[in-house]
Amino acid sequence: MAPNLDSYFKTVDANAEAFIDRLRKAVAIPSISAEDERRQDVVKMGMFLKSQLEALGAHMEARPLGKQPGKEHLELPPAIIGRYPKEKDESKRTILVYGHYDVQPAAKVDGWRTEPFELSIDDKGRMYGRGSTDDKGPVLGWVNAIESHQKAGVDFPVNLLMCFEGMEEYGSEGLDDFIVAECKPGKFFADADAVCISDNYWLGTEKPCLTYGLRGCNYYSIEISGPGQDLHSGVFGGTAAEPMTDLVRVMNTLVDKDGNIQIRGLSELVAPVTKEEESLYTNIAFTMDDFYESLGSKSSIFEDKKKTLMGRWRYPSLSLHGIEGAFSGAGAKTVIPAKVTGKFSIRTVPDMEPHEVDTLVYKHVEQAFDSLGSKNKMRCWLQHSGKWWVASPKHWNFTAAAKAVEKVWGVQPDLTREGGSIPVTLTFEQATGKNVLLLPMGSSTDAAHSINEKLDRRNYIEGIKLLGAYLHYVAEEPMKEA
Amino acid sequence: MAPNLDSYFKTVDANAEAFIDRLRKAVAIPSISAEDERRQDVVKMGMFLKSQLEALGAHMEARPLGKQPGKEHLELPPAIIGRYPKEKDESKRTILVYGHYDVQPAAKVDGWRTEPFELSIDDKGRMYGRGSTDDKGPVLGWVNAIESHQKAGVDFPVNLLMCFEGMEEYGSEGLDDFIVAECKPGKFFADADAVCISDNYWLGTEKPCLTYGLRGCNYYSIEISGPGQDLHSGVFGGTAAEPMTDLVRVMNTLVDKDGNIQIRGLSELVAPVTKEEESLYTNIAFTMDDFYESLGSKSSIFEDKKKTLMGRWRYPSLSLHGIEGAFSGAGAKTVIPAKVTGKFSIRTVPDMEPHEVDTLVYKHVEQAFDSLGSKNKMRCWLQHSGKWWVASPKHWNFTAAAKAVEKVWGVQPDLTREGGSIPVTLTFEQATGKNVLLLPMGSSTDAAHSINEKLDRRNYIEGIKLLGAYLHYVAEEPMKEA
Repeated sequence: MAPNLDSYFKTVDANAEAFIDRLRKAVAIPSISAEDERRQDVVKMGMFLKSQLEALGAHMEARPLGKQPGKEHLELPPAIIGRYPKEKDESKRTILVYGHYDVQPAAKVDGWRTEPFELSIDDKGRMYGRGSTDDKGPVLGWVNAIESHQKAGVDFPVNLLMCFEGMEEYGSEGLDDFIVAECKPGKFFADADAVCISDNYWLGTEKPCLTYGLRGCNYYSIEISGPGQDLHSGVFGGTAAEPMTDLVRVMNTLVDKDGNIQIRGLSELVAPVTKEEESLYTNIAFTMDDFYESLGSKSSIFEDKKKTLMGRWRYPSLSLHGIEGAFSGAGAKTVIPAKVTGKFSIRTVPDMEPHEVDTLVYKHVEQAFDSLGSKNKMRCWLQHSGKWWVASPKHWNFTAAAKAVEKVWGVQPDLTREGGSIPVTLTFEQATGKNVLLLPMGSSTDAAHSINEKLDRRNYIEGIKLLGAYLHYVAEEPMKEA
Repeated sequence: MAPNLDSYFKTVDANAEAFIDRLRKAVAIPSISAEDERRQDVVKMGMFLKSQLEALGAHMEARPLGKQPGKEHLELPPAIIGRYPKEKDESKRTILVYGHYDVQPAAKVDGWRTEPFELSIDDKGRMYGRGSTDDKGPVLGWVNAIESHQKAGVDFPVNLLMCFEGMEEYGSEGLDDFIVAECKPGKFFADADAVCISDNYWLGTEKPCLTYGLRGCNYYSIEISGPGQDLHSGVFGGTAAEPMTDLVRVMNTLVDKDGNIQIRGLSELVAPVTKEEESLYTNIAFTMDDFYESLGSKSSIFEDKKKTLMGRWRYPSLSLHGIEGAFSGAGAKTVIPAKVTGKFSIRTVPDMEPHEVDTLVYKHVEQAFDSLGSKNKMRCWLQHSGKWWVASPKHWNFTAAAKAVEKVWGVQPDLTREGGSIPVTLTFEQATGKNVLLLPMGSSTDAAHSINEKLDRRNYIEGIKLLGAYLHYVAEEPMKEA
């Protein structure tokens, strides 16, 4: 039975300007977590969010996360956590939602057409401003959904737990331990029956999606060193064993130009494609033209949609990011660098265990270096590792969200995965032991980390409806996995 | 017949403290040509040099070289040119000497043990200070030699032409055209019978050398581009043809880990080793331990002296310097760079014509890139080119210098080549059509471009004797090549 949401939807529409104004106020706070001197603005944004929810009757707490590692003079912005309604209704399900109230750096001089911290709405309803889509719009979506229920006089369908952080754009420092601790029995998030995160994007611009998978990422460094100091290539060229030569030779063994990873044993770790999965890709609202547009060229590895989606979602990839210690400026410098560090990462997928990947990488790199017979020294290490995540899209958390999408947008959502990582997703899954859903509000053209970030008015207002509708459907969805 | 130089030598010794004081005054002027805000100090140093020589009766001129290319608000420091004695003695030979009065940047915070622009002499006679050995010591060597002749009452044996520039450490901007113009008939340098440059170093610390060869340098860029902008490796890894992958694959084809250049046809351009040349290397005062010390490790390509000297002096080498546009910082960044530019250079030797090298390089790089079948775009170009130089060490200019070395130091000098370039050498050879000699004053441990640059007191004082003695021998040496 579909909940009757008409009254809620009408109230959202009737209050659209107020909700846009709320977003305007939030965008005006430059809560840039990467810039130390903006830390007070990050805190200010957290407090704004807290007071908005308190005004709606939520129980809110600002939980300190301690000093910032490596910058001990700086206090981390607090985790803003809350509960709505204040008193738990034991007859209702409990849904934990996550978002972040910090933003990426932005400055007009970077090429913004408008002031990044002033919400500017053009005649097509594109609402420009830093944080509009990432992630202030979605976070305020939950606030607006609560307010609309109150104004519409519609009973709030679930116990809502909220977790909003202020360091997402700077590695979510301090958050993992906090989540794990608060998911323990008797603690703040202990009762969550499912988790919903709204911090990603549609695959395109027209069709909503639900996201059930993310790739992981293992990031490695290969350091090769020899000479006691940087050398002049005139004096030492042809007589010194050059670390750069060795590094390029080792990096060359990692991946071919078609993106095939050359590390022995790695492809055997990848889960085989099932017949069911094979059939999933055809109907996804995604075209190669979409892809070429986002790529900014036609220099793709594949020329068909299915291979491209599989390349992004369900196969590992290896990217060479750069070299530290070598000459990287413009112009010409005749240096032989004494120590160079190549950086590369592997995007991981089921069933690649991160430590198994490490083992294969170290073995491969060592063999590649040893085979050179170089007198230089080599060291290879993992910089950081985050595991892939795949949820069941047949879980009631997802089927409820699919019904909400169909109710709001009139179409069945695509079930998608993403190539990148949202590490907190896995943290919530592991800490709660419950299903996690990624429910995006914005579209693929929102330019989340770029200049001219925007959120379409339509995505914001319909998104508020979607979040509310999701809570209604998830409150009623039969609790079984198909 | 060896000139009787005893009186001159004694006068040099008697005035040693005054000569060191002259160097102290010169070092105190921070004539850093690479730093715009020091331009007035560069000019001040030029004027200091001019006035010192005018006080000794030389005819001096400060010749403007125009605006600095790319920095048109800056006037280039003048070429300080001169003639001593003022009036040409038609019965004497004319020797053109070159040096530079600008220095490399230096600051105490870089790690200097003493103030870089205060000459500090330790108990072993090491005179620390920026420019002490490169090239203020040698330049003042000529000044001190003139003064010592006057004080000793010894007739000056040649017509001395002087060319001192103030932009050597910043690419000798403006100098080449000036030299070419002034070597034309009727112009300032037209009468030069031979050229002597004192702006390099002994191969070691104990034995003087004369340098008769330098390698050239062709510096190339390989740019590979594809995507319209930098990409996130999570979103695009496995689907975009990555320019870094292609670049590493192309750079990998250029040179093997033993320094062997893999460009087809290149080794055929290299002049074969003659039997006479074979025998030259054995007696050179150079050991692998010297080499390991200067390298700061034992990561050499060769383990024997002869191969190492040949690798530095008479074979080409290829060094990979770095990559522009890729991630080059510390830490981890999951970027797929949209455009990357690999930098490499080839040190060239006889008989490699620079443009023939270009042709082979372009062909090789194009083939290597084409063989990838990549959808990215590649462009390879020459950034700059400077030809190798080899003079005849049997020319009277060299045999005279060898006699001077034997007179001052009591040993026959090593005849050496160098792996690096001193482009002005070739300019003088081509513009005058005369033999050019490189006659070093300092030793291999002087740290010319590094922190704690120094000139040993012994090398300075005996060097003044050497420059004067050279002028006496070169005035008398039979004018024939053996």
